[in-house]
Amino acid sequence: MKAEVLTIGDELLRGEIVDSNKSFLSDRLLGLDVETWFHSSVRDEPDDIRDAFLRAIDRAEVVLVSGGLGPTRDDLTTEVLAETVGRKLVLDEGALEALRAFFANVGREMAKNNEKQAWFPEGADVLENPIGTAPGFMIEERGTLVFCMPGVPRELFKMMDEQVLPRVARKLGGGAGQAAERVVRATLLRTFGMGESTLDAELSDVAKDGDVTLGFRTAFPDNYLRPLARAATVEEADTKLKGVCDAIRERLGALVYGENDDTLELVVGRELTKQGKTLATAESCTGGLIAEKLTDVPGSSEYFCGGVVVYANEAKTALLGVDEAMLAEHGAVSEPVALAMARGACERFGADLGISTTGISGPGGGSDEKPVGLVYIALHRTDGPARCERFVFPLDRGRHRQLTAHTALDWVRRSLLGVELVGPSLMRRQGGASTPGGGAQRG
Amino acid sequence: MKAEVLTIGDELLRGEIVDSNKSFLSDRLLGLDVETWFHSSVRDEPDDIRDAFLRAIDRAEVVLVSGGLGPTRDDLTTEVLAETVGRKLVLDEGALEALRAFFANVGREMAKNNEKQAWFPEGADVLENPIGTAPGFMIEERGTLVFCMPGVPRELFKMMDEQVLPRVARKLGGGAGQAAERVVRATLLRTFGMGESTLDAELSDVAKDGDVTLGFRTAFPDNYLRPLARAATVEEADTKLKGVCDAIRERLGALVYGENDDTLELVVGRELTKQGKTLATAESCTGGLIAEKLTDVPGSSEYFCGGVVVYANEAKTALLGVDEAMLAEHGAVSEPVALAMARGACERFGADLGISTTGISGPGGGSDEKPVGLVYIALHRTDGPARCERFVFPLDRGRHRQLTAHTALDWVRRSLLGVELVGPSLMRRQGGASTPGGGAQRG
Repeated sequence: MKAEVLTIGDELLRGEIVDSNKSFLSDRLLGLDVETWFHSSVRDEPDDIRDAFLRAIDRAEVVLVSGGLGPTRDDLTTEVLAETVGRKLVLDEGALEALRAFFANVGREMAKNNEKQAWFPEGADVLENPIGTAPGFMIEERGTLVFCMPGVPRELFKMMDEQVLPRVARKLGGGAGQAAERVVRATLLRTFGMGESTLDAELSDVAKDGDVTLGFRTAFPDNYLRPLARAATVEEADTKLKGVCDAIRERLGALVYGENDDTLELVVGRELTKQGKTLATAESCTGGLIAEKLTDVPGSSEYFCGGVVVYANEAKTALLGVDEAMLAEHGAVSEPVALAMARGACERFGADLGISTTGISGPGGGSDEKPVGLVYIALHRTDGPARCERFVFPLDRGRHRQLTAHTALDWVRRSLLGVELVGPSLMRRQGGASTPGGGAQRG
Repeated sequence: MKAEVLTIGDELLRGEIVDSNKSFLSDRLLGLDVETWFHSSVRDEPDDIRDAFLRAIDRAEVVLVSGGLGPTRDDLTTEVLAETVGRKLVLDEGALEALRAFFANVGREMAKNNEKQAWFPEGADVLENPIGTAPGFMIEERGTLVFCMPGVPRELFKMMDEQVLPRVARKLGGGAGQAAERVVRATLLRTFGMGESTLDAELSDVAKDGDVTLGFRTAFPDNYLRPLARAATVEEADTKLKGVCDAIRERLGALVYGENDDTLELVVGRELTKQGKTLATAESCTGGLIAEKLTDVPGSSEYFCGGVVVYANEAKTALLGVDEAMLAEHGAVSEPVALAMARGACERFGADLGISTTGISGPGGGSDEKPVGLVYIALHRTDGPARCERFVFPLDRGRHRQLTAHTALDWVRRSLLGVELVGPSLMRRQGGASTPGGGAQRG
């Protein structure tokens, strides 16, 4: 099944915003094993929108459209689509009611021009938008499903997941001349620490059932797995999906850190909360990135005491009590200093766990003995032994910092789970410094 | 003049990466007042690439292509374009030489398949790529300029700015039946602190000359200005451009913080270096974001001593010496505490300037007296008076943190320049929490 994503709006073509809706929609489709073949964006010009619709309906079986559903004159998606496929616009009383209720709910009067948002091409399947004014809709035209969704990311994301994907799954299940409708269920498993090709080899025999497939995707520094199951009923598909997920988790153990939208910092926070433990950070080369990630999670003040960013040696001594003689003997980028930083963080913040980083992210500052890319990560626990490891990540400054922060957070998670502290290994080396996905070499 | 941006590569259509090349290219074109009418992406499929080329050449006068110039079998851009326009491929000896030199320079042997990258459609204008293996090229076909560039962002950005834009400007200058060729020169001025509509009103009489235009662009929390000048010669255009830039700077003063690629943290670092001063941070609600931004700049260890992230009250006392009684009396989110944090950062790190943030980024934690969005920013200097200000930024957690960090950095800059410390005012309220750069897509 071929899909096309079409986004509409002058602002996209001006380059004012990075159009992340497209990659979101394609990624979600891939969760159902549906591949996107075309991405297109056009301005709010009726002729261009019409051409784009005709082409998309012609070359794809699923067309996802975002934008142009608002109440203003240059929101043309619905009108132009209706005209393109030769249908008239009809008022949907339910949608009008929902619009009125939405405005009443936020205490505003509905403007006359919002009424336009309750008109749809004849035969359309209206898609509710509980968090915004613009409902979406689906029409089927010459065997192609065309879904029109609002451009506001928050509204689009919700509509895609709750209303569009189930309809695509239904078409998918019932397609290819199958007598009975079939259901597709999928999930995303997030892994960190193993390269894509190794994962692939490791899991080669997991999806043996013909109705189960396993997809891979890199999102630097993670690798994601996308198991997907097809069956006659939701229950049956869910059982199959659970079977393959269990098999993957059994095989990979702690390499799987979360599902779907669980970020690593969220998982770490959840585990700290569960165990009633607190964390502090002592960062040198990551420069505050670990603290920034942790505090990006609402409610993180419950388990995150705080952190220090100690770039200068004097600061390492003054803030964390790192011994001056130790700094002089081993240098700031060394195992003893990393361990002293992690311990200092625990002590100064009164935390149960302390994590530290000290390294050379580059581009300058390296030497033969301590090359650019070198980093020490240390974890101190008030209730157990401390650990420190040396890595060399041959990456640019930004990715070096990212991989170091991610490894440090993963150590906290692993330590809380009582599993081995490992670093990223065997990760696939990729070109193109600024694309996500990829890996590093173990030092 | 209509432009189209076409990006090629399976990875784009899988949604693995957000295709920021498109918005970059469109934004840069807009710097020359050239509007992008179409964005398209296709997979590495010859038929789809051919269709996309034909359509683009037909409907646009400038076509910017990115991706598919690598040495592997699925890099098809050059080959398919040559075939599409009916030209044969010819070897460019200069490009081959440059490729060999590139590999020699990095100490690797050139693989046989890299030779392919030195072949171009007959009549092509080769565009050098000093930082990668894939040269770009331009062909003119039926009056349309087609530029093919590598997909690696770093290489693309450089090639676009240094080689593509001057050629587009040349076409622009000479176009529309003008007898003499005309030159276009443009720049980007970065401003922070004033809303777009106020900027627009403020600068309404700046671009009086018909050969000078002034564009606006929001990139949260900044607003960018794009003055552009046309003239018969480079010198003349540069003089006009300088004239309008000077007029803008005179009008806006310190609201303009940088030009082109100068980020705020880079400008702050440059000014600290120039004045031989050092900085320390004490962050609560920004959670390490200010430190993270500062240390993202290579060489920042020269002027950034370090920082603390003090979420818990105990940490504010233990790490920064904030008085417990003060915390009890005023609460952590208060002016006295913000000032004590900034002073503590200066003292503990031995820095010349200390900047602090304490606030409620939400979504929870607010009260009637201290609502979500409230934040205090304080700046302490060892050589001058301290300052603290109260703001309420009614934004989601992520944007609240971003705006707070940006305002704090801007205070450091303003303090170093000896100008008034102001906060963001009259900023345009925007929707769409998760889109970068200013506005979100409309409904």
